[in-house]
This record gives sequence, C-alpha cells and structure tokens, in this order.
Amino acid sequence: MTRDIREEQQGNPRFARGQAKLEELGDKGDAIFTSLSEVAPDMGRYVGEFVFGDLYGRPGLDDRQRQLVTLCMLAALGDTERQFAFHLGLGLNAGLTPQEVVDSLVHGLAFIGFPRTFNALNTAKHVFAERGLLPATG
Amino acid sequence: MTRDIREEQQGNPRFARGQAKLEELGDKGDAIFTSLSEVAPDMGRYVGEFVFGDLYGRPGLDDRQRQLVTLCMLAALGDTERQFAFHLGLGLNAGLTPQEVVDSLVHGLAFIGFPRTFNALNTAKHVFAERGLLPATG
Amino acid sequence: MTRDIREEQQGNPRFARGQAKLEELGDKGDAIFTSLSEVAPDMGRYVGEFVFGDLYGRPGLDDRQRQLVTLCMLAALGDTERQFAFHLGLGLNAGLTPQEVVDSLVHGLAFIGFPRTFNALNTAKHVFAERGLLPATG
Amino acid sequence: MTRDIREEQQGNPRFARGQAKLEELGDKGDAIFTSLSEVAPDMGRYVGEFVFGDLYGRPGLDDRQRQLVTLCMLAALGDTERQFAFHLGLGLNAGLTPQEVVDSLVHGLAFIGFPRTFNALNTAKHVFAERGLLPATG
Amino acid sequence: MTRDIREEQQGNPRFARGQAKLEELGDKGDAIFTSLSEVAPDMGRYVGEFVFGDLYGRPGLDDRQRQLVTLCMLAALGDTERQFAFHLGLGLNAGLTPQEVVDSLVHGLAFIGFPRTFNALNTAKHVFAERGLLPATG
Amino acid sequence: MTRDIREEQQGNPRFARGQAKLEELGDKGDAIFTSLSEVAPDMGRYVGEFVFGDLYGRPGLDDRQRQLVTLCMLAALGDTERQFAFHLGLGLNAGLTPQEVVDSLVHGLAFIGFPRTFNALNTAKHVFAERGLLPATG
Repeated sequence: MTRDIREEQQGNPRFARGQAKLEELGDKGDAIFTSLSEVAPDMGRYVGEFVFGDLYGRPGLDDRQRQLVTLCMLAALGDTERQFAFHLGLGLNAGLTPQEVVDSLVHGLAFIGFPRTFNALNTAKHVFAERGLLPATG
Repeated sequence: MTRDIREEQQGNPRFARGQAKLEELGDKGDAIFTSLSEVAPDMGRYVGEFVFGDLYGRPGLDDRQRQLVTLCMLAALGDTERQFAFHLGLGLNAGLTPQEVVDSLVHGLAFIGFPRTFNALNTAKHVFAERGLLPATG
Repeated sequence: MTRDIREEQQGNPRFARGQAKLEELGDKGDAIFTSLSEVAPDMGRYVGEFVFGDLYGRPGLDDRQRQLVTLCMLAALGDTERQFAFHLGLGLNAGLTPQEVVDSLVHGLAFIGFPRTFNALNTAKHVFAERGLLPATG
Repeated sequence: MTRDIREEQQGNPRFARGQAKLEELGDKGDAIFTSLSEVAPDMGRYVGEFVFGDLYGRPGLDDRQRQLVTLCMLAALGDTERQFAFHLGLGLNAGLTPQEVVDSLVHGLAFIGFPRTFNALNTAKHVFAERGLLPATG
Repeated sequence: MTRDIREEQQGNPRFARGQAKLEELGDKGDAIFTSLSEVAPDMGRYVGEFVFGDLYGRPGLDDRQRQLVTLCMLAALGDTERQFAFHLGLGLNAGLTPQEVVDSLVHGLAFIGFPRTFNALNTAKHVFAERGLLPATG
Repeated sequence: MTRDIREEQQGNPRFARGQAKLEELGDKGDAIFTSLSEVAPDMGRYVGEFVFGDLYGRPGLDDRQRQLVTLCMLAALGDTERQFAFHLGLGLNAGLTPQEVVDSLVHGLAFIGFPRTFNALNTAKHVFAERGLLPATG
C-alpha cells in the first residue's frame, strides 16, 4: 500500500514549510511524496524538509532564479531527464519563460558540450509541447 | 547466430572461476554471456575472467559487501540503470536486504545529490517489486 | 510548424560548409536541422557552423579518425545513447568498420569501466543490426 | 615563442566581436589568447569566435545571468577549478555579487551534492579574498 | 574574521546532534565548521544539521558501513580528493581497516575504471602514511 | 619498504606479457609497479595482467590508435591529469604526433565542452614541453 508522506509528516514544521513552498510552485507533490514512500519514505521527508523547506526557503534568489540554477546543474550532470522535466515544470509555473530556459541552455554549449545540451533541450521540448509553449526564436 | 561465451571458454580456468562465482550469486549468466557475444565476444570473456574471476575471487569482502560497494559506485556514476538492476539482483541473492540497500543510498544523498539517489531508488523499487520485496521503513 | 534550419541558413558560408560535410558523411541532416528548430533554432545553426563547419572542416584527422574520437568521448561521457547511435552511423558511412569501433570500446574498459563500455556496445549492437553488420570476432 | 592569437585574428569579425565582449567583461584575454597558442592556437580562436563571439553575443541573457549559468554548470561538471575562478572573475566584473554566487551554489546542494558544492565554494572563497570581497551572510 | 558556526548554532538541536556525531567520529569540526564560514556560513550549518545530524543519525548502517558507502561514492564521483581524505580519516577512526578500504576500491575497478581507482588509492596511501598505517596485502 | 610487483609476478605469463608491452611502449613501469605496491599491490598486478597484458595484447588497434582512444576517454572523463600525462607519454613513444593529439582533442570540443578540452590540452602542453615538442599549428 502506498504511503503518503504528507500525512505522516503533519506537524513537522520544516516539512510543512517545504510542502507549502512546493504547492506555491504549483505542484501538490502527489508524485514526489508518494513514489518512493514504500521503498524509502525518508526521501519524501528530506525533499520536503531539506530541499523545499531549507534550501528553497532561503532568501536571496527568487523562484525563477532558483529554477534556472537547478536546470543548469541538472543539464550539466546528465542522466537527469525526469528531474529536468519536473523542475522545468516548476520553473515555468514560477514565471520562467521557455526563451530564458533555452537561452541558458544554449549558452552552456561551451561548457557542457552539445550532447548534454541536446538532451536537456529535447526534454524541454516535450515539456513545452505538453503546455502548448514553444519559443518563437532561439 | 548468437554465440554462447560459456561454451567457448570451457577449459579456461579464470573464466570457469568467474562463471562459478556468478552462478553462486544466483545468475546463470544467460544474459551476460550471450548479449554481446556477436558484437564483442571478449566482453563476456572479460566479465567472466576479470570481473567475476579475478575481482570477485579476491578475499576480504563477502558477497553482500561486494554488492553494496558495487551499487554505491553505480549510483554515483549515473547512466547505469541496467547494471544497477542486475547487481541489485545479485546482492539480494547474496543476502543483502532491501533495507540495507535503501539505507546506503539514502546515506549517499549528501555526496551524490538527490537526482542520482532518486534514479537508483527508482530502479531499486522496480527490482524489489519484481521480487515481492518492499522494505517496511526507509 | 517545424522550421527547417537549412532553408534559413542559405547564404551562410560556414553553415553551408557544415551542411556539405554532413551530407558527405551520408546524412542529409533531416533530424539534426529540424528536431529542435521550434525550440532552439540556433542549435541547428551551431551544429552546422561550429561542429560540422569549423571542427569537421579542420585538416589533420580523416573522417574515420574523427568519428572514432567522437565515439570514444561519447562512451566515456555517458548518457549519450542517441548521439552515440548518430555518430556511429556517420562513422560507418565514412568507412569505420564495426570491428574498429568494438576494438576501441573494448580497449577502453580499463579507463571508463564495464558499465559505460556495455552501454556503448549495446547501442552499437543495435546500429550494427539495423545495417546488417555484425563483426565476426571481438 | 608564444604566439598571440589576438594579433593573428585581426580582421576576423567574429573573433573581434568575442574579443570586444571579453574586454567588456573586464579581461583583456592575456591568458586565454596566449596560454595554448603554441600547442593549439585554434583554441584561442574558438574561444574568441564561438564562445565570446557567438554565444556571448546572443540576446536574451544579460552578463550577470550568463555568468551565473556558467558557474552553475562548471560547479556541476567538476574538475573545473581554473575555469570556475576565471568565470567568477568575469561575473563579479559584470556586477554579480558574491552573495548571488553563494546563494546559487548553496541552492545546488540538493542537486550536485556537498563535495561538488564545497569545491566550488572553496574556489569562490579564494577569488573573493583576492578581491577583498567576502559576503556578510550565506 | 572567521566565524565559528558551532558557536552560532548553539541551541539548534539538529546541529547539536550532528556536531556530537562528528565528534564521536573523532573530528572536532575545526575545519568543516570554520573554513567556509565567512563565505557561506550555512554550509557548515547544513553539514551539521543535514549530513551529520539527519543522515548520520539514521539507524540501519553502522559507522564503518557509512564511511565505506561514502568512500565508494566519492571515488566514483571523481574530483573529490579533499573529501575522500576527510572521510577516510573518519572511517579509520570508526574502525574501518585500511584493508577493507583497499579491498572495496580494488573491487570497484570493474565499475569506475582504473583512473578513478588509482586516484582514490593514491589519496588513501597518503592518509594511511600520515597515520602510520599501510596494509600488508592488497 | 616499497615492494616491486615486477619481482613478485615473475613467472606469471599474463603479467609478463603486459610488462613486456609496457616496456615496448617505452616505460619500464618503475612508477606503475611500485607506487601503490605497499597499499594495494594487486593494482600493479592488474595493470600488468589485464590492462597491458589482456587489453593491450588484443589485435586490431595499433599502439598509436590505442593511445589516442585512451587519451580521448581520459579527457572526457575528467580528473585524470596524471593518467593523461602518463598515457600521452606512451603515445608519443609509440609515434603519435603532438599534432594528432591536439587535433583529436580540439575535435572533441563539441562533445566534452571547452573546460575538459582546456584541461587536457594544458596537461598535453606540459608533456610536450618536457620533451621539447610543440606542434607548429593547431
């Protein structure tokens, strides 16, 4: 039976802050707080507490910047297709435009090479298409 | 026509030792000794001789430790989904518990980050599910 | 509507040189010059200008060597399955034999390890099979 | 004898644009256009033409954003200490604050893990110190 | 002026737990809690709270296993010399023997290749030498 | 006391073949067969047996090709400065020209990006300089 980390963590203020932040970014966490809950329930807890609670709760960057930073690192890392699609969705919700994402990835050609850049842009293309968003120029 | 490296390597003591070790770990090698046999037959030979013959034949670590070491490195490396699933199977055969695997991967969050850890745990989840094994806590 | 970068870049000599080079390597660029054209049209332009125009236009290496260099780097990098298949196709067109590719990848076992090598050889196997090419020994 | 790529490329408009851009970012290119000039003179040319000419000449991102994107990718890639220090210098020249850099890197903890983040921040610390800049909070 | 994160975090129970754990592992944290304190003071806080507080505070693995998992991931990741030396020190304090570390790294030859393994063993050699520990066999 | 793996492996035909191959490539193995001999003596044995015995003993590639393949993979992998310098030395001994090495690395700009390429070329520059070899063009 799938556990729902959100129910288990009620009353945990760091988790609640992370959960609220994720909802503010337009994702209820249905996937992230249930997908590994049978196998590694603390993963959902740490995503709530540490990633969206602590890190996303820090002052300094706005959400658009956070997601751009995230996407650049994921593109460089490689083998992160699922995470890239997820965080691109959050970024678009936060007001990041497809053009900003594309411009950042194309800029990175020099640093991470064409294969990593193509992979990220292919994933971006699918996310943009699902949302009916395709940049006019690039 | 698919070649079977096991037949070709009969009489090769290093290969035989590796083949025996792999069988002891619960895998007859049907995939590993045939899948690349038309393209790169020496891959199967080196897997038998060097990996399961030489390296797995070394004293020092027991099979559970070997597989945990293997899984941690594969998780960190990235783009190793097939290998991770294969070696997790061997590890479970050797007595590694899902919980030990999950605990080790979750510990690694600090070092390899959330995306690599999520990828490995997702693969683990599928392997656990195929075997009817899902840890109670994580 | 899918744009075709080749039409847009008519009259761009660096692009034309790259396009001609790619055609000489046996690929009309139908995929590479259209797949990202709605999302990031400059990707196709840079592939034409910088990759196949500037880099492939350099003296020194012949096409077989270029493709072997490319395949070795892609294998080492990981998460490059699509690019590896594409560049292997160009390499075979340029006269690279399956055996040379396999020999180079198997040699690399020592440096990039078995998982990266297996991944590259599995992709190679599919490309060889599509073309009815499978090396006799490996 | 060290060659100076800048002299050799006089009259090359793409290179000139890149050279001007690099100077606008506060670096005359004394290192980048001479260090490999005896070994691989085209490296300096491509840095001028493709990196600072083509990519840095694109509209869309401002220089601060470009450098933040660059630094995030370099941090994720690893083994890029020299490049990270160089691009951090350009970023600070362009108005990026130490705090923005630190905030972006600390945000990335979740994605690239503590070791890559520590390495980048250690390099940043040295660059900040050389310039008498150390953020008050982080 | 160097700040000391340990003083600033007095009264933070997650940090206190991490600090206690690190001390239990034989390191007072003089480096880890001061080195980035001027640049990115939250790094020390997260190392205390999340890494040594949350992750090291989890049940399941003992300290020797934790450090072996850590070392395997760091070796695979590459560009982690400083972290590898630090965590090897903690591992030896926790009772990990040089032989166990060496056996684990040598086992990993198949997965991460010779260069990453050589790098890790070279770092290990220096740490062993500093402590007057060199394994008799390997 | 430093052990010399070459003495210990006398009478091991696979090792002898590897040792002979390494000597043929112009390196007596003074470093490779002693540097880790106290810590992990089997590393020297596997380098002799598996790397220079098995892999370098394979037909198909000549020594120049082997070293070019090796260098391309090491450049892509990153954090392999020592290994790159060592294998470049062997490659030059085998007749690889500085120009071929440079041409291959510069070609790889598209795939592994500028930072990895710069790192490899910087190491190459030092090796070339030590041998009084610097290519005329690049």
